[in-house]
Parts: sequence; C-alpha cells; structure tokens
Amino acid sequence: MTNVLTPVSPAAHDDGATVDVASLGEVLLGRWAQVRLDARKLAGNPELHKIEGLSHTEHRERVFKQLGILVEQDGVHRAFPTRLGGSDDHGGNVAGFEELVIADPSLQIKGGVQWGLFGSAVMHLGNEEHQNKWLPGIMNLEIPGSFAMTEIGHGSDVASIATTATFDADTDEFVINTPFAAAWKEYLGNAAVHGVAAVVFAQLITKGVNHGVHAFYVDLRDPATMEFLPGIQGKDDNIKGGLNGIDNGRLAFDHVRVPRTNLLNRYGDVAADGSYSSPIASPGRRFFTMLGTLVQGRVSLNGAAVAASKVALKIAIQYATERRQFNAASDTEEVVLLDYQRHQRRLLPLLATTYAAAFAHEELLIKFDDVFSGKHDTDEDRQDLETLAAALKSMSTWHVLDTLQECREACGGAGFMVENRFTSLRADLDVYVTFEGDNTVLLQLVAKRLLADYSKEFRNLDIGILARFVVGQAADLTLNKTGLRQVAQFVADSGSAQKSAKALKDEDTQRQMLADRVQTMVAQVAAALKEAAKLPKDQGAAVFNDHQNELIEAARAHAELLQWEAFTDALNRVTDAGTKKVLTRLRDVFGLGLIEKHLDWYLMNGRISMQRARTLSPYINRVLAKLRPHALDLVDAFGYGPEHLRATIATGIERERQDEARDYYRKLRASSAGPIDEKVLIHKAKSASKV
Amino acid sequence: MTNVLTPVSPAAHDDGATVDVASLGEVLLGRWAQVRLDARKLAGNPELHKIEGLSHTEHRERVFKQLGILVEQDGVHRAFPTRLGGSDDHGGNVAGFEELVIADPSLQIKGGVQWGLFGSAVMHLGNEEHQNKWLPGIMNLEIPGSFAMTEIGHGSDVASIATTATFDADTDEFVINTPFAAAWKEYLGNAAVHGVAAVVFAQLITKGVNHGVHAFYVDLRDPATMEFLPGIQGKDDNIKGGLNGIDNGRLAFDHVRVPRTNLLNRYGDVAADGSYSSPIASPGRRFFTMLGTLVQGRVSLNGAAVAASKVALKIAIQYATERRQFNAASDTEEVVLLDYQRHQRRLLPLLATTYAAAFAHEELLIKFDDVFSGKHDTDEDRQDLETLAAALKSMSTWHVLDTLQECREACGGAGFMVENRFTSLRADLDVYVTFEGDNTVLLQLVAKRLLADYSKEFRNLDIGILARFVVGQAADLTLNKTGLRQVAQFVADSGSAQKSAKALKDEDTQRQMLADRVQTMVAQVAAALKEAAKLPKDQGAAVFNDHQNELIEAARAHAELLQWEAFTDALNRVTDAGTKKVLTRLRDVFGLGLIEKHLDWYLMNGRISMQRARTLSPYINRVLAKLRPHALDLVDAFGYGPEHLRATIATGIERERQDEARDYYRKLRASSAGPIDEKVLIHKAKSASKV
Repeated sequence: MTNVLTPVSPAAHDDGATVDVASLGEVLLGRWAQVRLDARKLAGNPELHKIEGLSHTEHRERVFKQLGILVEQDGVHRAFPTRLGGSDDHGGNVAGFEELVIADPSLQIKGGVQWGLFGSAVMHLGNEEHQNKWLPGIMNLEIPGSFAMTEIGHGSDVASIATTATFDADTDEFVINTPFAAAWKEYLGNAAVHGVAAVVFAQLITKGVNHGVHAFYVDLRDPATMEFLPGIQGKDDNIKGGLNGIDNGRLAFDHVRVPRTNLLNRYGDVAADGSYSSPIASPGRRFFTMLGTLVQGRVSLNGAAVAASKVALKIAIQYATERRQFNAASDTEEVVLLDYQRHQRRLLPLLATTYAAAFAHEELLIKFDDVFSGKHDTDEDRQDLETLAAALKSMSTWHVLDTLQECREACGGAGFMVENRFTSLRADLDVYVTFEGDNTVLLQLVAKRLLADYSKEFRNLDIGILARFVVGQAADLTLNKTGLRQVAQFVADSGSAQKSAKALKDEDTQRQMLADRVQTMVAQVAAALKEAAKLPKDQGAAVFNDHQNELIEAARAHAELLQWEAFTDALNRVTDAGTKKVLTRLRDVFGLGLIEKHLDWYLMNGRISMQRARTLSPYINRVLAKLRPHALDLVDAFGYGPEHLRATIATGIERERQDEARDYYRKLRASSAGPIDEKVLIHKAKSASKV
Repeated sequence: MTNVLTPVSPAAHDDGATVDVASLGEVLLGRWAQVRLDARKLAGNPELHKIEGLSHTEHRERVFKQLGILVEQDGVHRAFPTRLGGSDDHGGNVAGFEELVIADPSLQIKGGVQWGLFGSAVMHLGNEEHQNKWLPGIMNLEIPGSFAMTEIGHGSDVASIATTATFDADTDEFVINTPFAAAWKEYLGNAAVHGVAAVVFAQLITKGVNHGVHAFYVDLRDPATMEFLPGIQGKDDNIKGGLNGIDNGRLAFDHVRVPRTNLLNRYGDVAADGSYSSPIASPGRRFFTMLGTLVQGRVSLNGAAVAASKVALKIAIQYATERRQFNAASDTEEVVLLDYQRHQRRLLPLLATTYAAAFAHEELLIKFDDVFSGKHDTDEDRQDLETLAAALKSMSTWHVLDTLQECREACGGAGFMVENRFTSLRADLDVYVTFEGDNTVLLQLVAKRLLADYSKEFRNLDIGILARFVVGQAADLTLNKTGLRQVAQFVADSGSAQKSAKALKDEDTQRQMLADRVQTMVAQVAAALKEAAKLPKDQGAAVFNDHQNELIEAARAHAELLQWEAFTDALNRVTDAGTKKVLTRLRDVFGLGLIEKHLDWYLMNGRISMQRARTLSPYINRVLAKLRPHALDLVDAFGYGPEHLRATIATGIERERQDEARDYYRKLRASSAGPIDEKVLIHKAKSASKV
C-alpha cells in the first residue's frame, strides 16, 4: 500500500512505536480471557447468527431455538448456584454473555431476559426453596419467562409502578392487579409468545399498608396450550426498531391470585397472618437493595456495547485502508481513505474511546464480580457498583450508536448495505440507550451520588477508579474556594513558556484538567442547589429543574474521567514498549479529545489560555497522523475473526478491486493504446501556441 | 394540563407572545403552498403508506404499484415539458415531491430515481428528439429506468468513473464497457428488478481521445421477459439499512452496443465521422454543467429531510406534553416531560433548527426554480445554486437523523416501537447523508467555493442570502488583517456594561458573530493554503490534507449562517405580532445555540469574554422555558394531520392513560380505602416518639 499523502511509509517504526497485536489482544481480553474466547467460539457458530430479512415472527422462533443451543452448549449457566449445575461465577457469566451480541443482539437480549433478569430475580430475590423449585426449569428453558417490571406509565421510575399485590389472609394468597391502562406491564421480552411464567413487580399491600415494590412469581400461560391463564391478558408489541428476534409484549392482571409463598421474599416477607417483615427497616434502602441485584443487566449492556464498537471499527478501518477515492496527490494514484485527515478525525477518536470504554468495562466487571461473589459486598460497595454501572452504561451505549453511524457513513453506500453489519447492529443496539435505565435518568442518579458525596464532605471511598477522584477533590476544593486556583492557573498558563498544547500530553496534566472540571461543576451546582433543599418541595423542585442540564453534564464529565482513569491504568498492564508508546498516544487522543470537546468550559473558567487552546486541535491532528500507521493493528488486537465480522467489505474484496483497477490503468498507460485525455490535448495545444 | 414546575400557566400570554397557528402555517407553506397541500393530500392516502414488516421483495412490489398511483393522480409530472403533458414547473415539482417522504421514503426515492434522475437526465441532457421518444414512456412508467452513474470504485468522485463508451464509426455505435469489477455501476434504484432502460454515465472516447463523462441511453431488459439484454449483467443489492421498497442493484456492460444517437448530446456530441463537438469548450466546465442539471436531487432531499424532521418533532413534542414521569415537585402529581429543563434542551433546539432549515429550504427552492425556469440562469446562478444545495442538503440530512434519534430517545421505549415512526424513518433517511453526494464531500465543495471567492477578492455575488455574507466579509477583512478587531472587541466585551449573554439576542450581534466566524475561518485556512498552491502536487496535497478538517468546519459554519439568515429573513414575513415574538425567540435559540456550540472558538479567538460566555447557557435555558408554553403550537403550525403522523403516541392516547391513572389515585385518596404508605407510617411513628 502506498501512502500518498504522508511520505513516510506506514510500516516504518516511528521512534519505536509498534503494536504487538497478540500481547495487546491479551490485555484486552482481561481477567476472563478464556471465558471470552470460549464465548467467541460459540458466537462464531452460524446457527447462532442473525439472518437478515426474516419476518419478526420467523426471527423470534429462530432466536428461541438458539437459546436451546446455548443451553446445550453450557454457555449461559455460569452465574447460577453450583448446587444447581452453575458455577457461581458472576463476572465470567457476564463476560461470556456480552460476547453473544456479535452473533445476534436479539440472542444476547433474549438470553438476558431469560437468565439475566427472570432467572436472576428468582435467584437473588427468592429463597433457596424458590431457587430449587424454579431455577432448574429456567436454566434449561423448560420455563421461559418474563421480567415484568416496567409499565406503560412508568419506565425508569420503578418506585411508582401501579400494579398491586394485595395479601388476602383468608386464602393465603396475593391478588395481583392492574388498576388502569397505564399500569400494564410493557416491553417485556418473552411476553408476546414464549413466556409461561413471569416475575411480576408490584406494590405489596398487606393489612392496609403499602410496603413498596416487591417481586412475585406468577404463572402466565398453560405450557400445554400456551393459552393465557385466567385473569391474564396480553398484547404483542409487534415490530420494533430492532431486536425483532424478541417477542416483546404487554401484560395485564385482573385480580390474579398466587400463593403467598410466590412472593420472592429475600428482602421482605408476609406471614400467614398478614404481618410484614423485612431484614431492611428503611423502605427506601430496601427498594434500592432489591433493584440493585439487577445491576448485571447494565453491566452486560456496557460490555455488549463495547464489543459491537470493536466489530464496527474493525470493519470500517479495514475498509478505510483499502478503499481509494480522489487522486488528490497524484495524477495516477488515488488516495486511501484513512490517509485523509478528515477520515482520521472521524474514526480514530472513536477507536480511542472504544479502548477507554473497554478498559473501563473490565474494571466494572471486576467490581461487579467482587460484589456478587461476596468478596467485597458492603452497602457502599453496592452503591459504588450502581454508580459506576450507571455512568459507564450511559457512555458506552451512546458511544456505540455514534460509532456505528460514523462507520456506516465513512463507508458510504457500502455502509448502508445490510451485509456490512453497521445498520443492522445500529437498529438492534438503539434501544440499549433507554432500556435497563434510560441513560438520561441514569446520569441523574450519578449526579445525585456526586452531590451526596459532596455534601458529606468527601467521605473516603475505596472503590478503585472512583477513589482517586475523591481524594483529588478533597485536596482541590480549598484552592477553588479561595478562588486562588483559577487566577493562579490562568496567569501561569498564559504567561509561561508552555504555550502549546503539547504540554497537555503529560498524564498528570490531563488527569488534573479532567478531574478539576468534575470537581468544579459539582461544586458549582451544589452551591446553586444548597438553598433549594430548604425550600418547600415545589419551589425546591423548580430550582433543581433550573440546574438539571448542568447536573447531567457534571455526571457525564465524571463518567468521562472514569474512562480516562481506566485507560491510563491499563497502560501499566502493557509491557511491550512499542505497544505502550502507541497506546499512550491513543490515550492522549482520548484525553485531549475530551478537553477539546469541552474547550469552551476550560476557556471560560480560565483553565486554559487562548493561545494554548488554539494549538490543541492542530496538535491532536498530528497525533492522529502518527497513529494512522497503527490503526489496523489496533483493531486487529480486538481479536475478532471473519466469523464474527461477517461483513463483505472487511474481507479484502475492496483491495482486490482497487488493485485490479490500478493494474488496468498501469497497463493502459504503458501500452499507449489508451485514449488521450481531452484536457491533456488542450494543454498541449496551448503550450504549442505559446512557442 | 397543570404545569407543576413552572407556576405560570402555559396558556398565559407572556408579554404578548402567542402563536397564530394558521398564519404561521401559511408562512411555512411558502410559495408553493397549494402544491404542498395537494401533495400532502396525496400522501395521506393509505395506499401510499409504508407497511412495516413487509419483506423487501413485497415492499418493492408495493412501491412499484404506488408509482403507478402517482402517475394516475398526476402528482409527479410538473417538471416535464408542457408539450409532453408536464407543466414546466420545477420548483413546484420538487415542493410536491418532497412531501411524499411522509407516506413512505422508499416511494419518494423510487419516484426520484424514475422521474427526478432517469427522466431528468433524458430531459436535461438529451435533445428534443430524445425527449419526445422516451419521456412519455418514462412519465407514464412504461419505461422504468435506472440512473447509472455511481460505480463501486467511485462514489462521489464521478469524474473518475471507469465505464467507457467508445465510438465505433464503422457501425455508427457506441460500445459501452465495464473494464473491471470496481467499475460496476452500483446502488442503482430500478436496477435489481424493474428497470428496462438506464441512463449510463461513461467516459466518451472517440478517435483516441477521452472527452470525459457523458450520458447514454441504454436498454437493459426485454420488457416482455424482463431478462437482461445480451452483454448486460446485474446483481441484486438485496437488503439495505432502509429504503427497502427500492430494488437497488449493480450493472455491468460487456461491450454493449448502442446507436450513436443514444448519446444524450446536449453538452457534447459525436458526428458520424467520429468527430467530437461541444457548446462548452472547457472539459471541466462541461462536466460540471452536465452534473449541475442533477442538482434537483439534492434540493429535494433537503426538503424531505425538513418534512421528516417536522413530523418527528410533532410526535415527540405532543407526547412530551402528555407523558408524566417522576413526582419531582409534588407528592401526588407527576411532571409532564416537557416541563423538565433537560427535555426542553433536547427537543426545542432541534425545533429551532428545523424552522431554520425549513426557511432555508424555501430560499433554495426559489433559487432552484429561478435557474431551471430560466429566469436567472447564468453560470454564476448555477454555481450559487450548487453551493447552496450542497451546504443545505448536508446540514438538513444530518439534522433529521439527529432529530429522529433524539425524539426516539426522548420517548423512551415507546420511541423504539415501529408504530411510532421514528425508527422506521431514521432507517430510511440514514442514506440521505451519503447519497446524491456524500455530505463530507459536499461540504468540501462548499469550502472550495468559499476559498475561490476569497482569492478572487470577493467579487460581488448577487445571490440572496449569500450576498450579505460576502459584503460583510469585504468590509471586515481590513480590520482582521490589522488585528485591530480582535483586540478592540475583546476589550470592549470584557470591559463594557453588557456582561450578560442577553446582549446577544440582538439580531445584528448574532449576525455579526456568525459571519465573523465564517470570514475568519476562511481567511485563516486561505492563509495557510496560500503557499500550498505553489508547491508540487504531492506536497501541496499534504498541506491541504493538514487543513481538511478546518476547511470542512468553515463550510459548516457558512451553512449555519445561511440557515440563520433564512430564519431571520422569514421573521419579516410574519405579520402577527405575538407570533413574531415567539418566532424571534426561536430564532434566538437557533442563533445563540450556534454560538454556544462553537463557544470554544469565540473564546479562544477573543470574540467573547469569559464572563459573558458563562452566562450564555443559563440565558438559553431561560429562553427555552419561555418557549415551552408555545411548543405545541409551533409543531402544529407544520400542518401535518393524523394521516401523516400515523404514530400511536401522537393520538392523545397517553393523555387518556395519564388522566385515568390520576383519577384513580385521586379517588383512592378521597375514599380513605387506599393503603397507607409504609414510609408515612414510619414518619408518623417517629413524630409520635418525639412527642
């Protein structure tokens, strides 16, 4: 490949920067490497692949059968108790599960509904008797089930769901009821066709008291006829924007009676006399504890989003190194797309963010495993896990949509063909940004936590990547409070010798700038909201609302910092010097890209001088050009094979075509049999007339 | 509707701001109001609506039949010559056509292929004989045809296509040939199934000279059997990311012979002896003139993107005024989504941009009609039209994707259901950003033009919204050159009494700031590129490449200014004072939003003080809150009825559900039969123990 625009050969080792693809691949595989490799082998099986163009009913049946294959191949039971045939391996379970997205996202999500939500609810919210009774059938798919939490009228606001479960002591039963249309359970996988049971979330009412949301095991259909049981109504959600291999639907319950013992009673129980008891006294804490057991959905969406981003970038970058367009630099040679600055600008920052998201996901997964294995399972650990999952899931699911879209556009018309994967993956992953918690709501949860930490005067949190932030924050606030920091930095920045953005490639400087932004934003919002807390609820709400946008942006800044920290930590796990050099540049693109994205904030808060700010974009452009020769290595390290990519344009077909075309023209020019260009004739005629 | 977060009733006339929906609707309908209304009536016909879930083969047949309905209803012939049954109405034709997107984008685009590209090429590139021979059959759909320009190896770079048409004087024929795989014609509508003919673009070679790209009329299939004619090969593109009602495919030609007279010879002809002649001496100008006749594709994509944005915002904003979520401000009342600041931030700036894009489209359409009707049809007019179409098509097609996605997310899970339109429209419109010219390439054409104008020392262009820019530029450059402007403004800005962003609501200030940015960016890039033009081609190309990103950003800034100018001009067409007030605020949201988006630029170039910059976002938030009560009126003015919206969540169903739920709770509270909340009990117990 000739690199027309950059005279230096891309193969040349520029100051020792090279990528050891194999060892970088191992770093990316992380702690659950073997599980991932096994899962990828499974995901390479054509029987598990999405077939485009199926009707939604055909697709649903195919995916249901695929779940059976997963059961046969023993690919989905790692999280379940050893005594029931699982292996109590929570981190490994999610690591394996998320790789299924590359076979078919519908498969990943339908499996997630069956084992990750429905099965998990029985496992985490039920007692041993519940587990023994239902988990075997759930695991082997004899009991396909729904996770009936969301209602039409209440999506992310689970505490407000309206379905009731009222205890009737006379019959020792709960009466599950849907009081109005907005309380229909909605968007439930397995509800439209395959579900024979469900875990239904409802307000538990006994002895005239509402004890809040609890989970109940409810039979839905007669497995023999697949007819709904008496009192249960359903509606098919029909075709969706994607994930059409899943039979989403609605459910309503008209005074449906279930035995008292169908209450999944780990965190709240009702005795035969109707008296309520719970190991957690506070209704609020109880609610969050129950919901917290379901965090694994967010963790695995985060991982799936990262996996799909990797696949997309491998396809688009492969194509960009083969495809030629416009003879910008020579009369005979067209330029490879990735040699264009704009193309580097489009794809390489997304690659940097994907690396950041991948490393952050690994930390999340370890945290998740620590909590669910019981290794580190305090209330604080669980809260940290919740916050981390909310922050990272939001970032990565939006990121994958941006990535798929940019890749699709960067491949032009070819990107729009379904055979090249982008449009299909994008349609399926679209809903990831609003399900298992709407990203906008999740970021507000993160912001809430940041504020809580702030008001508690930075209690010492020991939670990996969060810790550093808080320590930094505590040290920093004094300076900010006096206003000294701003002024000092502004003066230093504009007056010092370090007037170019190059100084920003220093790791500590990047960390300090990103952390400073989070700290300052949180402090500013907190100051504005201080009084609001004292006002009557309606007035206080109005003040909060006036700062909602800032709150969300502060949470996003925090999430970005977490990703940056994870990327930086990962650099220490890279031993090969050449690889480390390349990866450090990629991290710089990520970090400097964040500063560039928020440059207005840095400028208007006096954190960077005008002069240095102006040099930032050109500096990033130069780093991108240095990364360009390594782009293919960096996507190859993701380790996906043709059985995972399944994209025509990633097969080398474009290079073959381009080579054939160039060969044709080369021969034509050599043979003198080719036509002369009219422009050349005109030019010759003009030259002749001048002589 | 109770507005919980903002005490003021949304119906209250805040300082005279109201919207006269009917008269604003007329302003939006513009010059071709009646054509639009007729087209919308047609688009309301259920026979023309997209049916979700059809297989791509079923969808193709349905759309083909729909084209027949368009012919029957006389909806698609306005652009064709009066003598053949058309009405020579170019602007009206596009105005009507683009409304079809709301029935089914596949219908709009397949119609566009048949009449807008294939038919237009015969009309504009052929002579009267060609028109008389083929247009009647094209108009009545007896001759479904393809527009065979793009090749696999060359998308936006049409000048480099490799298909050849070599004249054979012995037989008086052209030999059309595909020399290699990359030269296959690709992504052609009507190629996979329905096309019996095509206009094929190829390098015209006669007497050993290549005269560049010309168009040839070529029969493809035997209409009786629908088999390909000898020498022609085809391949079905199969399923795409959207627009599956169109039978895209590939074509290759193996020395296919067509009569010499099949050359569409308006801009270049070959005599029987093989000698070439053209009314345009310069091959470059000839090429751009031929391609320029096809600008209407871009114009109508621009209009269709605007129409789809309007539909999406009407659906999402309707839902946002009905849907309630979280009881943020009261214990009993949940808040309507659009009362949340974040929700206003998500949807209302998109609404402002949609208005800007709509008004800019109207100006483009008028310009287009001026050129094609012959009213103002100089070379300069055509160049201006090209530039304007390239700039606006890029902005509006990206905008509609952003809008559809944000609307889909803002409606949560409901947004993902195909019955609510967003995902379906988004899938179909995705390709608009890369076809009829990849947006990234189009913006580079705009940038080229900006540079050309710059280097010719601002020759006086009289082209409506472009003119003001150039005049402003000439006046401004002297100041910039001396560096006086920056310093003066910076000092004035930070030192004056106008320290808040409120000063930016002044129209002239907005214009000056937006125009200044374009001018400065162009001047800066031009300065950097000055030397590059003198370097050898390869070195010069490298310098250009180093500034490609800046060039594209300059073009985008220019396009944004064009939209802002169009919006501002449109304010003068609004006579109702209350409406004008609201619309001026909406324009301010657009203008200030642009400044906010590029705030880093304004700061680092000393165009705005840090102090004022910090007040900008909060100020915009306040304007958004003022617009919120008028949001529904502003989308109602678009004039789309239920037959166009066809979205369940825009039918009022959500309000019914919410009302039913609130009624249920109200009765429960009144009856004292309802359960007591455990939290309330605990609170009471605590209070009691304190006594």
